[in-house]
Formats: sequence, structure tokens, C-alpha cells
Amino acid sequence: MHAYRSHSCAALTAANVGDTVRLSGWVNRVRDHGGILFIDLRDHYGITQILCDPDSDAFADVEKVRSEWCIRIDGEVKARAPELVNAKLPTGEVEVFIRAIEVLGESKELPLMVFGDQEYPEETRLKYRYLDLRREAMQDNMKLRSDVVASMRKRMWDSGFREYQTPIITSSSPEGARDFLIPSRLHPGKFYALPQAPQQFKQLIMVSGYDKYFQIAPCFRDEDPRADRSPTDFYQLDLEMSFVEQQDVFDTIQPVLTGVFEEFGKGRKVDQTWEQISYRDAALWYGSDKPDLRNPIKMQVVSEHFKDSGFAIFAKLLEQDGTEVRAIPAPTGGSRKFCDRMNAFAQKEGLPGMGYIFWREKTADAVAQELGITVKEATAKLKSGEVEGGMEAAGPLAKNIGPERTEAIRQQLGLGLGDAAFFLGGKPKAFEAVAGRARVVIGDELGLTDTNRFAFAWIVDFPIYERDEETGKIDFEHNPFSMPQGGMAALEGNPEDVLGFQYDLACNGYELVSGAIRNHRPEIMFKAFEIAGYGADEVEKRFGGMVNAFQYGAPPHGGCAAGIDRIVMLLADATNIREVIMFPMNQRAEDLMMGAPNDPQNEQLRELNLRVLPVES
Amino acid sequence: MHAYRSHSCAALTAANVGDTVRLSGWVNRVRDHGGILFIDLRDHYGITQILCDPDSDAFADVEKVRSEWCIRIDGEVKARAPELVNAKLPTGEVEVFIRAIEVLGESKELPLMVFGDQEYPEETRLKYRYLDLRREAMQDNMKLRSDVVASMRKRMWDSGFREYQTPIITSSSPEGARDFLIPSRLHPGKFYALPQAPQQFKQLIMVSGYDKYFQIAPCFRDEDPRADRSPTDFYQLDLEMSFVEQQDVFDTIQPVLTGVFEEFGKGRKVDQTWEQISYRDAALWYGSDKPDLRNPIKMQVVSEHFKDSGFAIFAKLLEQDGTEVRAIPAPTGGSRKFCDRMNAFAQKEGLPGMGYIFWREKTADAVAQELGITVKEATAKLKSGEVEGGMEAAGPLAKNIGPERTEAIRQQLGLGLGDAAFFLGGKPKAFEAVAGRARVVIGDELGLTDTNRFAFAWIVDFPIYERDEETGKIDFEHNPFSMPQGGMAALEGNPEDVLGFQYDLACNGYELVSGAIRNHRPEIMFKAFEIAGYGADEVEKRFGGMVNAFQYGAPPHGGCAAGIDRIVMLLADATNIREVIMFPMNQRAEDLMMGAPNDPQNEQLRELNLRVLPVES
Repeated sequence: MHAYRSHSCAALTAANVGDTVRLSGWVNRVRDHGGILFIDLRDHYGITQILCDPDSDAFADVEKVRSEWCIRIDGEVKARAPELVNAKLPTGEVEVFIRAIEVLGESKELPLMVFGDQEYPEETRLKYRYLDLRREAMQDNMKLRSDVVASMRKRMWDSGFREYQTPIITSSSPEGARDFLIPSRLHPGKFYALPQAPQQFKQLIMVSGYDKYFQIAPCFRDEDPRADRSPTDFYQLDLEMSFVEQQDVFDTIQPVLTGVFEEFGKGRKVDQTWEQISYRDAALWYGSDKPDLRNPIKMQVVSEHFKDSGFAIFAKLLEQDGTEVRAIPAPTGGSRKFCDRMNAFAQKEGLPGMGYIFWREKTADAVAQELGITVKEATAKLKSGEVEGGMEAAGPLAKNIGPERTEAIRQQLGLGLGDAAFFLGGKPKAFEAVAGRARVVIGDELGLTDTNRFAFAWIVDFPIYERDEETGKIDFEHNPFSMPQGGMAALEGNPEDVLGFQYDLACNGYELVSGAIRNHRPEIMFKAFEIAGYGADEVEKRFGGMVNAFQYGAPPHGGCAAGIDRIVMLLADATNIREVIMFPMNQRAEDLMMGAPNDPQNEQLRELNLRVLPVES
Repeated sequence: MHAYRSHSCAALTAANVGDTVRLSGWVNRVRDHGGILFIDLRDHYGITQILCDPDSDAFADVEKVRSEWCIRIDGEVKARAPELVNAKLPTGEVEVFIRAIEVLGESKELPLMVFGDQEYPEETRLKYRYLDLRREAMQDNMKLRSDVVASMRKRMWDSGFREYQTPIITSSSPEGARDFLIPSRLHPGKFYALPQAPQQFKQLIMVSGYDKYFQIAPCFRDEDPRADRSPTDFYQLDLEMSFVEQQDVFDTIQPVLTGVFEEFGKGRKVDQTWEQISYRDAALWYGSDKPDLRNPIKMQVVSEHFKDSGFAIFAKLLEQDGTEVRAIPAPTGGSRKFCDRMNAFAQKEGLPGMGYIFWREKTADAVAQELGITVKEATAKLKSGEVEGGMEAAGPLAKNIGPERTEAIRQQLGLGLGDAAFFLGGKPKAFEAVAGRARVVIGDELGLTDTNRFAFAWIVDFPIYERDEETGKIDFEHNPFSMPQGGMAALEGNPEDVLGFQYDLACNGYELVSGAIRNHRPEIMFKAFEIAGYGADEVEKRFGGMVNAFQYGAPPHGGCAAGIDRIVMLLADATNIREVIMFPMNQRAEDLMMGAPNDPQNEQLRELNLRVLPVES
């Protein structure tokens, strides 16, 4: 017999009754039922019930074991009595009577229980990650992650792509986030860097004629931590293709992702048609370039209704250039309580507040006022049906602008009885983000957001440049390597009007994919950088490898990168990226289990010709 | 029609004759045949012949294109005349008449020709890697590498393993080679390190209960460069299993590797039975712990034949403790010229020389001496058959030890007419390595080595410790994490006698795989480190993460790691690892294309609280 097991802990069924078996695993739980010891023995695959009675030679040893000891047992498979069968367990028809036991690894007192659902502080979980990872939910998440990545690879291979590995030790390239640096020992004073993404290498692979590249690529950014971002490294499904236009990239990645979401989405609906929304429309409609489209709310411009209206704040505001009033429709949100709560939300977000109108059943008060009768008389008439109740618009805003404008707004927004609308005004950039967040909260609170769905949309037509409001300086809005729509000619006009062949994929409020058709023409690239204030020297210095390569017959190419950690997070229904990473750093970029970062040895610093300066306090 | 292509450059056949097609690719070659321009248009998939005659509207533009320009053409598919069909090309039955051309990317003068087999200095190839990678041989190597890795993954999945990613930014762990360090910005003065291998993490994954792990894992060592090693990073097929013994690991990896070698070995023979050779036998028989078993030569101890013999050097030597004389048999090596050349080889390797005996047809000289007649008489007797010639042993050694001992040696080694044997004496450690190299040269020069075969053997029973000859200090010979054979009891005896459950796989003279059954028992681990002079504090400090984990129910586990770069190198029949890496560093650990390493920005150093010291010259 094998030294450790004849079967896994998920394998035994009624067919094995009478067999002598050997199992290894961890003690999930020990129970003592009237002197008989029951052990739930757990391995990666499942759980088998083991039992030992006081007559057994092994009893004294079995009595010693505790939770999470690793043991091997030999024993005989017996059928459970029909009333004791556990239908939930694949091994629930049987149990194993212990004949012999070997302790493979004892355990100290546990700082964290593996069995059960008790919650622990994240620091405890990370310090004892090897215990945390034994828990059922974590085992499921890690298996899921592994299976998702495997599925992505298979789908990419089936689409004609090959995976090519790009260097992890490379040169610093200030293209956005902060690099991690690596001092060179052979070249003292010089540094390597970890790649923020394989961006330049994958473009070089295209220039090298490989046509279709992908990689499950580790990316490194020395960033300040966030819940949906690892503070050190993260993984992308990175791909690039030659001789393609934007739609070709879409047609390539969409089936890969819908396939993955269908395979692992546990029945949640997966959008099959992915709308393409311009960056500007996304900002207007959703207040975000990664809108959550499970939420049906779509904002609208309603400036016309407030121009020269009785609501002086908006009317005055609209006299200024570049201002707008936008409405967030809130179907079923028609109560003062809800509207006040949302107003408070906007104030907490730093705005003066959020005006609102809501539509409710006409009150006796309103009828009394309308007909010049007492409230008591009005109540009676409403009750008898002599006066029809119907709908009335409530809220201070409605009063200020009067019934006609209010009704026009209601019709534009397609709202009715029981609904509400919120209003924000000013320069869109100043309130768009808050409007977007308000939209999310409204959708969530009113239960409008379909949580049983993965909703996808391409956000397209990103502007290449943005103007710094304070300095007036033009800089790249996103990736500087994108091809401007209209090519060289477009760069002759107003930089702020230049759109790029650049796109993001939004899913359920996250940016899952980002990509572009690249600017493969050196002359257009130099011009694009010149507009952002970078001279040819600077471009050569920063991106020399790629710019040189483009001088030797570069093909048109483009691609994208999908965030794997986020995709797994969505599929696992988790909201913290550390739930889907095996050994994550904590929020201060520390590995509490391995003790990273730590103090270097003097010898190491000497070899690297480095001195650590005292920290200024 | 698609903006860039209706077909790839490998797709068109006689079935497409008459079709209007669009192709994109690179100008592999332009030829002018009597005013008609022929272009071999190349993409990742193949080559299609394009032609343009002076009547075409496109002629003027086509005339301008040069090698490696990237172009798009529209044209009509025509059948080639039967005598012009190129059977070697999948598209050889057709050619495309250009109607229109678009230049997608011009090329400057080429520093390196893509077409043809011209050789270039490695520095040129690395600086213009994007051109080098367009060459047919490099395209083949890169596709091979990608396909090998994909095949490994599929085979591992099919064997019940899941791939789990381990951290790339982690803590320094002085377990052998030198770490690459990464200064921490958030924790000034502290450093992360890149992992030399996922060793500790994969063991933690076992402690976490994941049973079967693998990873195509990047590994990082700041090592001095060699031809078969990258100076910065390399990839391993890394695997680990719980509840296994050594043979289980062998039974897991062997089918994966034989499968890969059969799939990509281009018909070369792949050993199906992998011998297990102890480390000590490998040293004796092959002078190496990674023997090339395609070479049939097996060394033997022949001390007995030299003890008290007339060859004073060996006879005296053998009076000292721990000395031996070993023979390298050299079938078909029986000529003085060859023997002298091998003797010179040993001298070049730093030994005083290598004694030899070779067996040849008896000469007239020898017969004359034997019978006391003249050489002329001897020649005549030999010619007439009056005296039988037969075999004689030649070389100074044979003379010194006399015919009986010489004959005994010949019989022990199973040699005969036309063969030779070489002899080395002393303490084995002093000459074993040279003997091993001599064995390789003998096998190669005599054509004994079967170059059409992949020959595998497990080298097992590595000693855990070695004693430093000078200091007498005991240290780990290999990996300190291996389980000693015999467990705790074995550690009570002489450290030098302790063998580990530790193994390497040798293939054609390379170490392809290395692994061990791990020491998962904290008490045995502390004892093992104590023997090598490491106190418990030191062990906690260096390997705290893992040692702590072992206190919470660690399972028995083991695994191995296979060197992917080397495997691909063997399959590609290359001898330089840079031929199978897309963007390798040069031998000075520089990336000439991207300019790594380079000077950091002052701002970067300030953020990291670091100062670069002046280099001492």
C-alpha cells in the first residue's frame, strides 16, 4: 500500500464497504460521542468521517489528536446506518473504523480556526495565511483563480495566440505609475526596474513579426494601496495583435471573456452584446468611465428646463459658459425620506447638495390649496372620488420652477408616480464624479441594480490629451502610445479635440480591460509627444527601444490587457482583491508571514554600492 | 474587405486563383526580372510571391519598397506556370499581381539582414532584437518555446495539478545564490527581494492543504553569466505534492517530460526507462552528477592492478589513504595519436597528464624483440603467417606494469583490439571532474555519443552535508530543506554519511530537474541546521515563514523544478540559452535594446532614501 493514502478523503462510497483503506489529511473536527471518537478527516478534495472506539488499539493515540493535526490512518470502510447517511457529503454513506494512526504533523494552539466561519482580523489572516488558506472559502477562491487563468489560456490558444514571456527585470520607464527599482551589482549606480506592464515589449514583439501575442503577465507598480488593487504586483491577460483595427481587438477578447464569465459565473447572466459608449457619453450618462450597467439609471442634460427659471441657483449658474444641469432619474425613489438621504449623501461628498423632485399621490393639502377649501373638505372629496387625486410633483425645486417645467422634466426623464429625480449643476467636471457615485447609491438603495448579471460595455473615443486646469498645460490623458483618430492631420488641430483609438471595458463598475490601437508611425509619435511638451530627445531617452524599432518596418498593431485579479474577484463575488490572491501583501505593502520588506545585510549594500540615508522625521 | 488582410501570407493556394485578395507583411526580398518586380511578402505564417509589371498603376510605388518595409497590397491571385511552381512553399502554386499598395511602415537601412543566414555578432543581434527575431530560425525557436510551455501546462493539468502564482516581490532569503533586492519606498531602508525560486512558497502551499501545485515560475538570481544560464532570470516548471515519497514525484514528472520530448524532439529517441544512479556512483562512473548517458563510456576503479606494480607513480599514490586509480575505457580509441591528444587534454585541464594503454595489432618490432630476431625477419614471418600477429598492449604504462596486469585491466574493462583506456589516480575529488570532462571528449571524438537521443537518468542519494576540506566545517551540500534518509536517527551519526531524499534529473549532460522530499518536521529541521552550524535563532530569522508554518500540522511533501530554458535549448538543438529567450540580457546582464540597467532619477533615489556611493577604482 502507498505510504500515505490509498484514496483521497473525497473518494470512498458505499462501493468501498469492507475495504481496508489508508487516508491522510487534517483533523477538521474531533467529537466525542459517548466515548466513541469521531474525526472529520479533511484533505484538498473532501472530508471522510473516521471513528475510533475505546476497544481499538489506536484509541490512546487517536485521543491525543487535535484540530489541524496532519495524520495518516488505516482502517476499514463501513456503511453508515441509513438514518446517519449524510447526503451532502460525497462520502456521506460511509465511515472508516481506525485500525492504526500515524501523526504526520502536530499543530500548536491555533491562532485561527480552519473549521467554521469565524471572522478574523486581516492581519491575523495574512500572518497565518497557511491556516487561512485551508478554509473552505479560500480553497474555493484559489481553485477558482487557477481555473479561470487556465481557461483564459485555453481560449487564447484556441484563438490562434501564442504566449511569449517578456522580461521581468528591465529598464525604468516613467510612463505613469511609479516603478520598483532594482540596483545592479555588476553596474554600480545603475538600476533595473520591474515592468509596470509588458507594454513596450509586446509592441516590440509585433515589430518582430509575431502577429498574435498573449501573456498572463505579472505587472508591478509601486502604488499606494486600495481594496481593489494590490500594492505591489498584479496579473493581466495581456494581448497584442498586428494588422488590426479596434473592432478586431473587440472581436477577439469578447468571446474569451464571455466564455470565462459563463464558465465560472455560477449561472449569473452574462451580456452577449457589448454596447460601445463614447468616453464623453459615459461621463454624461453614468458619471464614470467604468459605469455599472446593471444599474439602469442613465443621466440626462436638463439645462433647458432651468434656464431663466424660478430656481435662481441653476438659472444663474447656466449663464456661465460650460455649465450644465443634469438629472439623475430615480425610479421608485419618490419619497421625501429617500430624497433627503440622497441630498445628504451629496453634501457628504462635498457638494452643496442635490436638488430633487419626486412624484407622489396628490395630498389633501395640495387639493385644498388648489380648490381653496379646507384640508378636511379636501380629504372627504378625495375619499368619495368627487375629486380625482392623481400625481403631484413635490420638493422645493418643483415649487421654484413651476408645474410646466416640472412636467416637462418628468416627461423627458420618463418618470411617473412614485419616482424621483435629482439635479446637479455647474461645470460637469466638478460634479460628474459625485453624480456617478450618487447614481450607484440610488441604484443600490432602490434595488434597481440587477446583482445577478455581468454587464459589459466598451468605453471608446478617449481624448488623447487633457489640459491642466491650473497651469493650462496639455498632457496625455491616458496612454501616450495610442494612435490618434485621424492620424497626423488630427494633431494639427486643437489638442483637446483629439480622440484616440483607445478603449476600456467596463463591467459592473470596474474597469476590466484597457487597450488601444498603437501609434506605430514614428513621425506621428514624435508629433504627439511634442504637443505634450516632450522633445524628440526626451522621447528617445524614455522610449528609445520602441521608437528605434518603429523605424524598421513597424506593422499597425493594437491590443489590450484584462485585469485578472479583478475578474476573479467579480466571479468570486468578493470585494477585496486579497481574497483571490494566495499570498497578498497587506495594505502597507508588507508580507507579514515572510517578513518582507526587511533589513538588508551590510554585505548586500556594499556589493550594490548603496547607502541607506537616515529617515527624516 | 478588412483594412489589412483577407488572407495570411501562408493561405493562398490554387483554389484562390482569380480571387481579389489583400495581404499585409514584410518585404522579405525584392527581385527585378527583366523589369518585372517580384516581392516575397512575409508574415508570421508564411511567404507569398507578389509581382508587379510596369503597366500597373502601383509600379512606381512598388519600385520604392526595400527589404523589411511593412506593406499592404491588393491584388489578383494567378496560377504560376507549371514549371515555376515552388513545391517547397505552401503558396508555391500561385502568385499575386499587385493592383494597389500601401506602405504601412518604412524601414531605415538594415543593421542586420532578416533574409538569409548571415551571421552577426551577438551584440548586434541583441541591440536590434526586433530584426533578429524576424529571422526564420528565431521565429521557429520562439514558437517552439511557447508550444513547449503550453504542452507542459496541459500535461500538468491532465495530471491533476493546478497552477498557483506565488509572489514575485518578497523577502530576501539567503539560501544559495545572490538575491536581487528592491528598495521599499513605503518602508525606507528596508528591502524586498525577487525570489530565487518559489521554494518556500510552494512548501507553504502544501502546508495550506492544496495537495498538488505547479507553476511556470520565473526565478531570479544575481549570478555571474554562463552560456546555459541567464544572468538575471530564468523559468522553471515548478511542482510540489503532498503525501508523497520520492518515487511518486518521479512517476509524476517522467511522463510529462517524456511527453514533451517526444512531442517536440523531431524524432530523436527519448529514453523510456530512467535509471536511478546514486550520486556516488555517478561520480565514479561518469565523473559528474549530470552525466551524458548518450555516451556509453563508464569509468571503473582499477586500483588493484596498480597496487605494488611497476608503475611507481600510481603504486606510491595508492599507499595513501583515500586514493584510487580509475580507468576511462575508450573503445576504438586505440591509436597513439588519439591517446597523446587526450593526455594533452588532461594537462590543459591542470593534471600532470593521463596515463594510457592501447591495444593494437602486434608490430614487427614487438615480434622481433619477443623472438630475438631482426625486425626484417619478424616482418617476413608475420607476412607468411609463420608467426601469428594478434594484439599487443602499447603505451608506457603497459610496459611498466607488465603484460599480466595489463591483460587483467583489459579484461576488466572489456576492451579489445583497437581500443584504449586512460588512467587517473589520486583522491577522487581531485580528478573526478577532469575525468568526467575527458569522458565527454573521448565519447565525442570517437563518435561514441549517440547525438540522436535524449538520455535521462535520476541521480539520487545526494549527501546532505559536505565538509570543507580546508576549514573542516560541515555545511549543506545542496538544498537545506531536504528530508534526511533515516530521519532524526540518521542525524545522530557522521554528518558526511547522511544522504537526503534529494534528486536531480540528468539529460544529455545537463541538469534538467532538481528536487527533494522536504523536511517537514520542525524538530528534524532544527537539528539538521544545527549540524551545519545554524542556531535556532538564525533558522527562525532566515526561514521564519516556513518554519512557523511547519508547527501547524505540516504534511509530508516533496517536488521538483525543471529548467524550461534548458529544455527548450535541448529541443531546439541550441547551445546558447539566448537563442531560446525572446529578450535576453547579454553576458554583462545588460539589455542593449531597452538600455537596462540605467541611471536612476534623483527623485527616485530621494523617494527610496538611498545614496549611490562612488565606485572604488
